[in-house]
Amino acid sequence: MNMKKSKISNNVIRRLPKYLHKADELIAAGVNRISSSELSEQLGFTASQIRQDFSNFGEFGQQGYGYDVRELRAQMAQIMGLDRGYNAILVGVGHIGRALMDNFCFSEWGFNLTRAFDVNPELIGKEFGGVKVSSMDELLDFLKKNDVDMAVLAVTAESASAVGKVLMKNGVNAIWNFTNVELTGQQEADDVIVENISFSDSLMALGYYMTEDRDG
Amino acid sequence: MNMKKSKISNNVIRRLPKYLHKADELIAAGVNRISSSELSEQLGFTASQIRQDFSNFGEFGQQGYGYDVRELRAQMAQIMGLDRGYNAILVGVGHIGRALMDNFCFSEWGFNLTRAFDVNPELIGKEFGGVKVSSMDELLDFLKKNDVDMAVLAVTAESASAVGKVLMKNGVNAIWNFTNVELTGQQEADDVIVENISFSDSLMALGYYMTEDRDG
Repeated sequence: MNMKKSKISNNVIRRLPKYLHKADELIAAGVNRISSSELSEQLGFTASQIRQDFSNFGEFGQQGYGYDVRELRAQMAQIMGLDRGYNAILVGVGHIGRALMDNFCFSEWGFNLTRAFDVNPELIGKEFGGVKVSSMDELLDFLKKNDVDMAVLAVTAESASAVGKVLMKNGVNAIWNFTNVELTGQQEADDVIVENISFSDSLMALGYYMTEDRDG
Repeated sequence: MNMKKSKISNNVIRRLPKYLHKADELIAAGVNRISSSELSEQLGFTASQIRQDFSNFGEFGQQGYGYDVRELRAQMAQIMGLDRGYNAILVGVGHIGRALMDNFCFSEWGFNLTRAFDVNPELIGKEFGGVKVSSMDELLDFLKKNDVDMAVLAVTAESASAVGKVLMKNGVNAIWNFTNVELTGQQEADDVIVENISFSDSLMALGYYMTEDRDG
């Protein structure tokens, strides 16, 4: 969820990664050009939806000529800022934090993870995936001295709101929120972009499909 | 993503958890009844969209009378199978697996997590969140002897496809896939409901909003 109003609908934005993945897949398969109807069939979106999605970002692809796969990839990457190298920190080195530090390639998606923070003395000073863990006591000072574009919030639910507030008050423009706690309702939140990753919402969607399937 | 075709559009299904959360919030605040226009304002969906969403599941709420908040909650819970107690297992007790076992309340969302599996001898026999970890060598036998409705796939990307295949071939109808590996393209996949939780797609959406914000 994004608290600022975007010009582009959220549904369109959620499809952009699918276009990028598809372009990568086509490039890997040696495909250089694809028609909107072929693209439609492979993605399961209608051709008119694809054209409409792309028209939000100016013209790419030509009528009757299809889309240049590499150009499509480059455009999607640019639109989603994959070339920006946004500075990111991670707060809360629990299981989720560690999973991200150990296995998630931030740089591939346009982010440069520079530091992690935790309260656990056993973690402070350690490095995971080449990123150092500092004490939470140093967070405020770090935020004041560094330009942090985005913070991954992976603390416990109990401290989510308080830590979120510190981040928002001290220049962090965007929060990737794994805490399942809504960061709305704070004055600071109006200026901050928040993307919530909700495991429960995903599981409920799965539960819907399973239940529909059972009940016919 | 769901590989079987649903009667209801995916966009509608993704809104169902929002209705449930809102109903919970209203109940907690002591609200018994809400008009579709109030609900619209609070959720940021249009009133006509809300009416249309609900009309997919028969009538609830009455014209000019609004929605009974408890009934709305109950309907959403039923639609998403929160009362079903689906049997679930978890495969891969890495950081993500542990995060889910330690902190995620499966039962709240209609699932009964009965067993976890891993290859690591240090984990086998241990319990996390009251759920035992068995050896991967026992997975096939467990699937044959037990009715497993859903499997959480949290193994490494390298083994995702192979393990997914074992699950799909042995009676698991639904997979909650944390591996970032698409489980399509296998014959068995046609009959299986797969919900992918993609960290990278979520981060790309955040990157989009940040980039739009920067570039005005």
